[in-house]
Amino acid sequence: MPQLRKDPVLKQWVIISPERGKRPQDFPPERGLPPEEDSPCPFCEGNEKMTPKESLAFRKTGTLSDTPGWWVRIIPDRSPILSPEGDVGREGIGMFDAMNSIGVHEVVIEAPLHRQNLLNVNLDQVREVIWAYKQRLQEIKKNPRFKHFLVVKNSGRGVSNFSHSHSHIVATPIIPKRIEEEIDGAREYFHYHDRCIYCDIIRQELGEPSRIVFQDKLFLVFCPFASRFPFEMLIIPMAHQPFFEILDNDHVHGFANALQISLRRMNILLPDIPYNFILHSSPCSESYKDFFHWHVEIIPKLTRVAGFEWGSGFYINPTPPEDAAQMLRDAPI
Amino acid sequence: MPQLRKDPVLKQWVIISPERGKRPQDFPPERGLPPEEDSPCPFCEGNEKMTPKESLAFRKTGTLSDTPGWWVRIIPDRSPILSPEGDVGREGIGMFDAMNSIGVHEVVIEAPLHRQNLLNVNLDQVREVIWAYKQRLQEIKKNPRFKHFLVVKNSGRGVSNFSHSHSHIVATPIIPKRIEEEIDGAREYFHYHDRCIYCDIIRQELGEPSRIVFQDKLFLVFCPFASRFPFEMLIIPMAHQPFFEILDNDHVHGFANALQISLRRMNILLPDIPYNFILHSSPCSESYKDFFHWHVEIIPKLTRVAGFEWGSGFYINPTPPEDAAQMLRDAPI
Repeated sequence: MPQLRKDPVLKQWVIISPERGKRPQDFPPERGLPPEEDSPCPFCEGNEKMTPKESLAFRKTGTLSDTPGWWVRIIPDRSPILSPEGDVGREGIGMFDAMNSIGVHEVVIEAPLHRQNLLNVNLDQVREVIWAYKQRLQEIKKNPRFKHFLVVKNSGRGVSNFSHSHSHIVATPIIPKRIEEEIDGAREYFHYHDRCIYCDIIRQELGEPSRIVFQDKLFLVFCPFASRFPFEMLIIPMAHQPFFEILDNDHVHGFANALQISLRRMNILLPDIPYNFILHSSPCSESYKDFFHWHVEIIPKLTRVAGFEWGSGFYINPTPPEDAAQMLRDAPI
Repeated sequence: MPQLRKDPVLKQWVIISPERGKRPQDFPPERGLPPEEDSPCPFCEGNEKMTPKESLAFRKTGTLSDTPGWWVRIIPDRSPILSPEGDVGREGIGMFDAMNSIGVHEVVIEAPLHRQNLLNVNLDQVREVIWAYKQRLQEIKKNPRFKHFLVVKNSGRGVSNFSHSHSHIVATPIIPKRIEEEIDGAREYFHYHDRCIYCDIIRQELGEPSRIVFQDKLFLVFCPFASRFPFEMLIIPMAHQPFFEILDNDHVHGFANALQISLRRMNILLPDIPYNFILHSSPCSESYKDFFHWHVEIIPKLTRVAGFEWGSGFYINPTPPEDAAQMLRDAPI
């Protein structure tokens, strides 16, 4: 019989239907990279003039901004969904609320060569990407108009328009709904138990390790109890840390390692699968630090979301997370 | 500049980015019906033996169950996501909560002929489908283990596996998250204002009709202020009604008319576009009747939901609802 499971943070129920028993080969093969662009790739080294001016780059000493010589480069998005200029302009329209779409929307180009990506570069390059996120976020956070930021990666056919490996930094003047929900769930648990709910989840997962994909001293990777999607993974630091952007050196290295291992294991099971990852860090305020615990969600794009999920917020996952974790754990990387 | 708009019920922010100014022809043409099945269609009249036994059918006097002679037929889903048998079996697993996936999952076959659908049948047939929903929901509601039900339609390529026109009835032992959120938003507003938030939205939309697609004495169809998706529509009864399933005769007719007009207008602008509709009715309890107001969401599947939306619950809509409503209003049906 299918089982209903409740996400303890979001209070979201998920239907786990194990008799459908979906294994990697059961998902239709909508895989591969986005179609090659006809025109030159604006993200490749040498094409810096095709993009807006860089806001940050790690580059060889002596090279100039917006010229070759970089290994990670951050630029404003060409069609930003939020704009850094202007006033927040909060406004009531009768009973409705609106404001200007103030914020930051930047693109992190993760490597200079077109065919490099977070799976095939060496670990040093992944660390450099994490350093770039961290450094840019610290800078963005200085602007008090921004309440929250996300780091989001859309990779692969159907989820990204560009095949050159990249991710997005998005800073918003409000706390997005999904993060508000995590905050509410974590706050309520903290008030009741005086403990971080994520720290408790880590303890419970370590005690009964059927959903664990990878662990070392600093990081845990597991398939959540109420996974909404097949082979969904969560990467979380073992120690209670609300803020990603003040990560120390060891944790930058540990996170880069855990991220690359997770992506490589996913890729062994599901070659060239499109995926998203999303960094959830505490909003830009000290108020949440006792109960918010930063983490990264990795979601391979295997299932389509139909009317039932939209209408109900109630997900159907054909692959129990215990099965997914075992396959990911056993993937030979 | 793009605008941020907040859904007053869900408290969900949406980015409306009008300078992208998406018109119907700007969306890539992933349209059409699902690919034809090689095998005979189990939903066609004459193939009743290919399906589970019907739970309800409107059929000619003298014809037998599970034989031809019907015009609307409801059957259990062959791979149900919830099962009507067994015990709810609520269970704690450490800090996690689970229960058996008890519920109802049925398919409403909306017409006997393969090429009939809610757009091309006459209005009488649409009314019969609404009557069938209503009658079956009243029956399902007698089971006290079910707390809520949804009626969901997935239509078209990529959102449905069957090209024969059909919808789903899903009854669940919990109130789904999205409905809980609507209840929370509506309850909070009611406590503050002693008015139904949906009734107030209707009044505001009527006062400044830029987002209205259709209206008559009984029903309003409009594109919501904080539409998450291009050309999203909401159909809602003008009068305060919490429960869909006790609709009177006039409202059944009025709803069938508003639904068919909305779908036909959408189809003029976006021929053969896949779409979902979802009925949100009050949970099976009298507790919500002062502030819950049933409604139907219609969502054409035009945009893909990327990592940003998943990670943030923060949607990006390139078509302002005022523009969408005007195009839908002007569509020549």
